[in-house]
Amino acid sequence: MVSSLHRPAKAGPAPGVLVFPEAFGLGDHAIGKAERIASELGYVALACDLHGERSAIGMDQLMAVLGPLRASPDRVRGRVGDALKALLAQDGVDASRIAAIGYCFGGTMAFELALTGADIKAAIGFHSGLEVTSPQDAGKIKGKVMALLGAEDPGITAEQREAFHKMLTDAGVDWHMSLYGGVVHSFTNPDADKAGRPEFLRYDARADRRSWKEMADLLEEVFA
Amino acid sequence: MVSSLHRPAKAGPAPGVLVFPEAFGLGDHAIGKAERIASELGYVALACDLHGERSAIGMDQLMAVLGPLRASPDRVRGRVGDALKALLAQDGVDASRIAAIGYCFGGTMAFELALTGADIKAAIGFHSGLEVTSPQDAGKIKGKVMALLGAEDPGITAEQREAFHKMLTDAGVDWHMSLYGGVVHSFTNPDADKAGRPEFLRYDARADRRSWKEMADLLEEVFA
Repeated sequence: MVSSLHRPAKAGPAPGVLVFPEAFGLGDHAIGKAERIASELGYVALACDLHGERSAIGMDQLMAVLGPLRASPDRVRGRVGDALKALLAQDGVDASRIAAIGYCFGGTMAFELALTGADIKAAIGFHSGLEVTSPQDAGKIKGKVMALLGAEDPGITAEQREAFHKMLTDAGVDWHMSLYGGVVHSFTNPDADKAGRPEFLRYDARADRRSWKEMADLLEEVFA
Repeated sequence: MVSSLHRPAKAGPAPGVLVFPEAFGLGDHAIGKAERIASELGYVALACDLHGERSAIGMDQLMAVLGPLRASPDRVRGRVGDALKALLAQDGVDASRIAAIGYCFGGTMAFELALTGADIKAAIGFHSGLEVTSPQDAGKIKGKVMALLGAEDPGITAEQREAFHKMLTDAGVDWHMSLYGGVVHSFTNPDADKAGRPEFLRYDARADRRSWKEMADLLEEVFA
């Protein structure tokens, strides 16, 4: 697994946060977020690769790589389980205070980790896909779940939001969903605009700032 | 109009916030929130009565009083317009930095004020009804809109949330909706449990705390 470890300035045990990148793989975006989690929030952050050896893939490879991953709970769980093990193996990580965040498909990966019954305090997805491999395992979720979504994200429908809602509420999970009006996919990523598909991928400074704050508030709550 | 004015300790011009109470009318709940807005956030807060002379009404009178109000845009607008005038008439209120918040039907009143085209920076509803008298006026909204809702509130359906979403997005409004999983109506009001109807009215300390913070963050953003 390719990954990038970020530590707070202050020494001593600290909570740990996994950062799963957008579907294209580990790059500046997720690494930058992990660095901010370390430097601004004071947690150990591990930005993880989603695709094994490849650190980044192109749009043309996306479906070929994501398809098998999404179709196989074992494969997904192997990937997120390895990430958690890698974080827990680091010095100075308080194993009783772990959370996972992620972007786009990486957000789905954070939810998948929660669905394994892993002892994590929160799973937080930014413009994250809401379709998971094993919704029937929602009762295993131990921590809180947060989904931070563009209300106009063409990839996340009202039906998917309702199904996610029902899955979590029926399982008694403490969850929170935020919808940002007029906002689409990849709103946390300033590079999103480079794709030239503003109806689908578009950076939004306000939603980026607000969602970061909502994440930070939830992490503060669960790590208290 | 019966109302309750709350000032921050610091003298000098400050932003002003209208606080519209739950449907039962002005009482300790809204007055307590207005006091916190003044003392903790530093804004001038005016907790307003919804029902003219009556400061509080009973469940039996609720429909008789709310029915005509909900059916008449003019009546609703008269009521919220009077509240805004009363706030602006106070010394030390910065007229360029005004917001309205409200609880239950009071949240709807905050949205109604925004729909009049009033110069307010934000309209924020807690467990607020989303059905407004004049959705066709959404284009007149000048500020931001925030709805903070129990995901299991029996009085606020998925269809109503979608209609609210569409109304605001079609009008290009900057809006934000938060859904708290497992939470029903009146989650900000510790007295909600006294009604003995936990499937409908129930205090929720976490959602109360989180929604207060989301409100405070938005007020800070729009008053900056």
